[in-house]
Amino acid sequence: MKFFYYPAACSLADHIALIETGLAYQRVSIDRDKRTTDGRDFLALNPKGYIPALELDDGAVLTENPVILHYIAETSGKLLPAHGLARWRALEALAFMASEIHGAYQPFFRDFPELEKARAREKLARHFAILAEQMGDRPFLVGDEMTIADCYLFWVLMVAPKSGVDLPAPLQACFDRLKARPSVIRALAEEGLG
Amino acid sequence: MKFFYYPAACSLADHIALIETGLAYQRVSIDRDKRTTDGRDFLALNPKGYIPALELDDGAVLTENPVILHYIAETSGKLLPAHGLARWRALEALAFMASEIHGAYQPFFRDFPELEKARAREKLARHFAILAEQMGDRPFLVGDEMTIADCYLFWVLMVAPKSGVDLPAPLQACFDRLKARPSVIRALAEEGLG
Repeated sequence: MKFFYYPAACSLADHIALIETGLAYQRVSIDRDKRTTDGRDFLALNPKGYIPALELDDGAVLTENPVILHYIAETSGKLLPAHGLARWRALEALAFMASEIHGAYQPFFRDFPELEKARAREKLARHFAILAEQMGDRPFLVGDEMTIADCYLFWVLMVAPKSGVDLPAPLQACFDRLKARPSVIRALAEEGLG
Repeated sequence: MKFFYYPAACSLADHIALIETGLAYQRVSIDRDKRTTDGRDFLALNPKGYIPALELDDGAVLTENPVILHYIAETSGKLLPAHGLARWRALEALAFMASEIHGAYQPFFRDFPELEKARAREKLARHFAILAEQMGDRPFLVGDEMTIADCYLFWVLMVAPKSGVDLPAPLQACFDRLKARPSVIRALAEEGLG
């Protein structure tokens, strides 16, 4: 498998998941001209043009972050319960973060007008409260074991300061715990963020 | 199961899927004060406040449209291949439509400033081209059989005229085919859109 990413982008979630699960893969970053570091045109591989993307051994290229994370979990048999409500809760949290929270970060990534930033801050405060409520006093987002939802959550929480919205205490505590995890330390170091 | 929806909202996708799969369920709509037609406070059931939501028989409430569709498919054993790339392609298309296309519809639903509408139109034209390319000349989005991705696609295509962005021919043809399907005719009629 080849894993396409930009340092510090939401592909960090998959990077953490790949390290956690121990799957074999190659890391390939993308430059500003959309060339991959293995010398190919990224737009030919993934016409959407965004990361993460995962090239499978048969050449198929999978896109969409929650789906790539799900694929990593299912292929490795790790980071996602095989059955039961906890499985759906992890997939639900992933979909929520990918659609609602990542979407609300756009005005800060691209310096959109203040009206849009203010609207996004209001939304993010509500969304963070929902995640904090879901987490309660458990160590991870959907229970006692780490799931792919926590891999994505780490990136969401890392980026939150850009928005100026404060994190509720359970999320800040979770961020600090995840940051001390060997897989996270290694992923950050490999992306030059250590 | 109880299925919470608003007429004409993106919950139409789940409504179509529920009819297609033949699962037993009750339909419960929400009014403007967030009361359900079975007399409950919807925000107590789903603090996110948005539809669709699916109340399982044990009382757990599942949210996030792609995940509810996935749950419907897995519970019924229909509308999603059990294995292989087609399964991932259906989940990928769902995640793409829910994050990128639904997100880009917001400026038209809420009458945001023209700057935001213009930016969204540009994005939608690109996204529709990607779906059309993926579909090619096949009858459904990821192959010869209908999947949950097509249930969501129907809603995406139904709403497209609000954005003023023209649909590429393969998508318009797919919309016309889906519209003639008994499950779609019935779902539209039950939502007062027939």
